[in-house]
Amino acid sequence: MNIEQIKDFIKENIKKYGYKGAVVGISGGIDSAVGGKLTVDALGSNKVLGLLMPDRDSAPTTLQDSKMMCNFLGIEYKVIKITGALRKMGVYKLQPPAELFPRKFQEKYVRNIWSSESDDPFLADLQNTGSERILKGQAYYRIKHRIRMLYLYLEAEQRQYAVIGCANKSEFLSGFYVKYGDDSSDIAPISHLHKSEVYEAARMLNIPQRIIDKPPSPDLMPGITDEFALGIKYMEFDRIVKKIEEGKDISDEPDKLVKRVKLIRDNSHYRRIKSLQL
Amino acid sequence: MNIEQIKDFIKENIKKYGYKGAVVGISGGIDSAVGGKLTVDALGSNKVLGLLMPDRDSAPTTLQDSKMMCNFLGIEYKVIKITGALRKMGVYKLQPPAELFPRKFQEKYVRNIWSSESDDPFLADLQNTGSERILKGQAYYRIKHRIRMLYLYLEAEQRQYAVIGCANKSEFLSGFYVKYGDDSSDIAPISHLHKSEVYEAARMLNIPQRIIDKPPSPDLMPGITDEFALGIKYMEFDRIVKKIEEGKDISDEPDKLVKRVKLIRDNSHYRRIKSLQL
Repeated sequence: MNIEQIKDFIKENIKKYGYKGAVVGISGGIDSAVGGKLTVDALGSNKVLGLLMPDRDSAPTTLQDSKMMCNFLGIEYKVIKITGALRKMGVYKLQPPAELFPRKFQEKYVRNIWSSESDDPFLADLQNTGSERILKGQAYYRIKHRIRMLYLYLEAEQRQYAVIGCANKSEFLSGFYVKYGDDSSDIAPISHLHKSEVYEAARMLNIPQRIIDKPPSPDLMPGITDEFALGIKYMEFDRIVKKIEEGKDISDEPDKLVKRVKLIRDNSHYRRIKSLQL
Repeated sequence: MNIEQIKDFIKENIKKYGYKGAVVGISGGIDSAVGGKLTVDALGSNKVLGLLMPDRDSAPTTLQDSKMMCNFLGIEYKVIKITGALRKMGVYKLQPPAELFPRKFQEKYVRNIWSSESDDPFLADLQNTGSERILKGQAYYRIKHRIRMLYLYLEAEQRQYAVIGCANKSEFLSGFYVKYGDDSSDIAPISHLHKSEVYEAARMLNIPQRIIDKPPSPDLMPGITDEFALGIKYMEFDRIVKKIEEGKDISDEPDKLVKRVKLIRDNSHYRRIKSLQL
């Protein structure tokens, strides 16, 4: 991985397309920390705006971690509550209100539903299948990342800024993203990095340890972390997927894991647009 | 153009990805009429849901034409007002309220702004440049197509339906679409058809003449039709762009038009995501 190459890539594309700066959605997670830092290093902190867009299901630490990151980056930021627009769209009717329950209870509750509804909830999600409750859950959580994308563009376009996307290669390979949500941006500086490489970049960029140590989570439903949903650790997914990509021997890898990686990878096309030719 | 091939393509992809039906945004224009009819012919009218999503700037005929189309297609439809969510997002603060003025006046007013602000407003739009007023205008109109996409998915995901996209090839080639708006769908059955071929398909599919005769318009701002914005007629754009694609002689085409087509085409990459590799 070449950190300088990524910074040059950002700088060049900002210049080439006439953008005056960049907007980054800061979630308190490692991907937007790395994407944000690379952007700040490339353009200067005065040319970067952070958007913090928590909703009612965000972890209690999300907002404070995001603010801490913006301070670390030295950037101006805006906190945008996405709840009002989502309520207006009828989104909260799809799920019972959660505010009354303690967070730990919510987390356990959601994980239990997730696990009880299907043998493989991640795959059901990728394939858009499941019971009525699960389908409503999919519609409910996906629109959050999508409306965040709308807010990013609403701010970016008024300033002639680019939207920086912070999805990584492991997410694109596994389908672990929201189609037309967190995959959608003008410049995607870490889309060629596996999650394990994002960690490597984080250490090189001196991202605060607290952000590096957090379990990766889409922060869309209480209790659902990336690795809980994927059913495999990123470290394992990345290692095996890289071996497959590079045509290397995988006979030393546990059968169960190889099967899992292939299943996830072979189904990720569910997220892509189908056309006769484009 | 092979109409049967397109119907098969829709049918096959619905089956392959386990969708139970399809949602189509019906705008009252020719693209969604053709996309909708192909979908209905492929799946049956009982498996297709139409969404009608007018806003305060939509033409007065939009809603009645859309309803007429849904009746022609024999499909169930829902009318969704996008105004409430947009207001909640602060979008209407970007533009003065228009309701008080007669439509004809609005149309002239918007066209005057559009023409006075730049030598080439379409190119300025494609390049995300312009005065503060123009930038606000871009943010203001683009979010409408984006929020329509969110509503399409909100309905589709709950039903395990696919979102059908009705953008055509002329739009993709010219950049005349809203990035992460009308370009975004699960199945894009007419994205390989130039606008002139969409007209041809419309006649083959017996689309009501009233829809065929309407001047194509994104219906995002009063008075701005496709051809007014593009600064060239679709017929000319398609003819010249096809010649260029097929490596044919273009010396018989007027210089001014060829220049226009090349300018538009060479700038359409502004709408695409930039990454080091994906």
